[in-house]
Amino acid sequence: MTKILRADVLLTPTGEISNAELEIDDNGRIAYVGVARPESAVTHDLSGHALLPGLVNGHTHSAMTVQRGVSDDEGFMPWLAAVQQFEQGLTRDDIVAGLELAMLEMIANGTTAFADMYHWDEGLLELVKEAGMRVLAAPAMFTNEAVGFPGVSPLNGAETLDLTESLAERFKGDEQIKLAYGPHAPYTCSPELLREISERSQRTGIPIHIHVSESRAEVEQITEQYGRTPAAHLDSFDFFDANVLAAHCVHLTPEEISIFAHTGTAASHNPVSNLKLGCGVASLPEMLEAGIRLTLGTDSVASNNSLDLFEEIKLATILHRGVRHDAAAVKASDVIDIATRSGAEAIGFAEAGALEVGRLADVIALDLSTSRATPLSSLSSFVAFSASGEDVREVFIGGRHIYSKGEHLTLDADRIQARAAAVRERLGS
Amino acid sequence: MTKILRADVLLTPTGEISNAELEIDDNGRIAYVGVARPESAVTHDLSGHALLPGLVNGHTHSAMTVQRGVSDDEGFMPWLAAVQQFEQGLTRDDIVAGLELAMLEMIANGTTAFADMYHWDEGLLELVKEAGMRVLAAPAMFTNEAVGFPGVSPLNGAETLDLTESLAERFKGDEQIKLAYGPHAPYTCSPELLREISERSQRTGIPIHIHVSESRAEVEQITEQYGRTPAAHLDSFDFFDANVLAAHCVHLTPEEISIFAHTGTAASHNPVSNLKLGCGVASLPEMLEAGIRLTLGTDSVASNNSLDLFEEIKLATILHRGVRHDAAAVKASDVIDIATRSGAEAIGFAEAGALEVGRLADVIALDLSTSRATPLSSLSSFVAFSASGEDVREVFIGGRHIYSKGEHLTLDADRIQARAAAVRERLGS
Repeated sequence: MTKILRADVLLTPTGEISNAELEIDDNGRIAYVGVARPESAVTHDLSGHALLPGLVNGHTHSAMTVQRGVSDDEGFMPWLAAVQQFEQGLTRDDIVAGLELAMLEMIANGTTAFADMYHWDEGLLELVKEAGMRVLAAPAMFTNEAVGFPGVSPLNGAETLDLTESLAERFKGDEQIKLAYGPHAPYTCSPELLREISERSQRTGIPIHIHVSESRAEVEQITEQYGRTPAAHLDSFDFFDANVLAAHCVHLTPEEISIFAHTGTAASHNPVSNLKLGCGVASLPEMLEAGIRLTLGTDSVASNNSLDLFEEIKLATILHRGVRHDAAAVKASDVIDIATRSGAEAIGFAEAGALEVGRLADVIALDLSTSRATPLSSLSSFVAFSASGEDVREVFIGGRHIYSKGEHLTLDADRIQARAAAVRERLGS
Repeated sequence: MTKILRADVLLTPTGEISNAELEIDDNGRIAYVGVARPESAVTHDLSGHALLPGLVNGHTHSAMTVQRGVSDDEGFMPWLAAVQQFEQGLTRDDIVAGLELAMLEMIANGTTAFADMYHWDEGLLELVKEAGMRVLAAPAMFTNEAVGFPGVSPLNGAETLDLTESLAERFKGDEQIKLAYGPHAPYTCSPELLREISERSQRTGIPIHIHVSESRAEVEQITEQYGRTPAAHLDSFDFFDANVLAAHCVHLTPEEISIFAHTGTAASHNPVSNLKLGCGVASLPEMLEAGIRLTLGTDSVASNNSLDLFEEIKLATILHRGVRHDAAAVKASDVIDIATRSGAEAIGFAEAGALEVGRLADVIALDLSTSRATPLSSLSSFVAFSASGEDVREVFIGGRHIYSKGEHLTLDADRIQARAAAVRERLGS
């Protein structure tokens, strides 16, 4: 059924529209965006609210919500070891519990699509579909079989490659579920495996999601081992000829930024996680300047410890201003674009990401009645600097209403939270 | 009447107590903190909640909430000019509107005490008292009479000094209202005025609240004018012999940090504002190492744009880790202490700030039923990394219940928000 939403204001890629109306057709696409039309039969009166495109989380490991607060004060490599130790005890049921908790939190915070790297199988992808979200899911791969999820899958490179391709075939044409190859990182995957994945990606069209240049330890290790920094190492065997989404990119050199730009490689900026783990501050202004395809990510809860993209938007806007002593270093409008239109494109959902006619209707409504929305300078100022995930009151994905007035319409919050708490109780911290 | 609160867990300076109980006596002081006593007549059953001391905002300009989103993309000096331009049109009623909106937001976010520099008079202080908060209020002073609040008060140095002292006399012994001298900054106040204020402070015991070393522009200007960096300039005429709360301290030299340490000067760390205005990143680890008295501040909404200290806690914990590539740079527990016990002491409310017997009962309750509190690794991990102001459900200040289940018990939220929005409508952006 056609839905017609009325709201005080909405955000389009070209500006804000007050006294706004948005129509969603039977196919879950946006049929009208503009000022309210007097004759419309409004189905959702959202006066006192603002409409935005759903936010896009460009890098996470959803199921790791059960590891919230694990190893809070460790640097990157010791933290990773603690996480991998925890994962030795994980069952597939635990992964279900973590994934569902993540979706609960992402939806409540206005995230409608996410790029994820972890253990994935058909049943888990069906859970995302039932919850109503969009995911670019990358089954994780390591060359070293000792890490990963021994209780769940062997993570043998060839086997996971085959799994990824069969899942991609199974969900071919699905508007909610897309697959990516998930080689973990240059320091955990051999050049042989990475080369094979790039070649297969170019043949199958399945994109690649990988961690690149996250920590100084990684840069040092890769440079020592291969004589090149991580992205240059990958480029040396034409890895980026494939369609690649590279997470973190904290320590890219100017040359590596150029490689990203001319190969069309997408970068996911994860400022909270990068600060918390002591990894550093990525060169967002240079990446913007170079025209790199960008997306914004929370990374997993184990290094964040929440899944609120409004927090990442604010931090990505102000962080680079501060560390460079330049209030013009990053514009709020650029970061909002990264968190929506550009992010959706970077993770393979180019038909979502903006409130424009013809796009998939991923729409969230923010409450404007709170003190932090008062006075309202502009919608983009509110979104960038004072809104929080708590302001999200309604979520539509592809026109389907999945969250309303703080209540989940597709997920059982109490059951999911109890289950996730029980997993942690069993596995400890 | 005695209040007995039961909660799942509470935070004391020495650790967390589960299955917890807190008793508040008739004088608004904490009479018991510990595990639940079977015989207690519980008056407030807060199962599913955690108790914390109220948070302390160590630097703000409350009334500037009406300037939310003003000049979002400007660097420090142009931003300051825009703010001062806006203030030319302010009336005292507008200041009331801004102050009340700030209190609404601070209380809802669990802030129970704040250090403020702006226009203050007896009526405004009575409003704080009625709302139930604690304030260290500093009537702002500038040597240049062209800036300030021409529609409200002349800001003549001598007159404001007298006002400050008479207000301090009027509220002598008050547990909610304390006064400070408010010379704006070394670059807006002459050495003569600053010297006089320091001398009067040492005589009267009224502390001083001042901005110090906020921007590089300030450091350059002061160094050029006086041949010394800002804090060294102030020290050259023994300014710090008084009891001083210095806001920002972004660019302190190691020598200036030593001056702060040996003079007992307090520093207020305002990471969000410092990043947003492009001011920089203060040396929090060195200030902690030197044993400086510290407090955490939001600064005004005009450079933040919200008043949520949970955001400052998380950022203060992770920011320095990231910029130094050292996950051990700042511990969460230190920042929580700065936001509570240490902060309360730094702004003159040393009897509040912690859940300990004998202290003033400034207590907030956080909801633990949300997804971001699941699983709950530890209360301090939740507070530092995943909680937000939205988790605050109950606020008691000096034992008085002023916020319950998201409702203000001392302030009329609708009226206050409408009034603040009208001010902005009139004054524009």
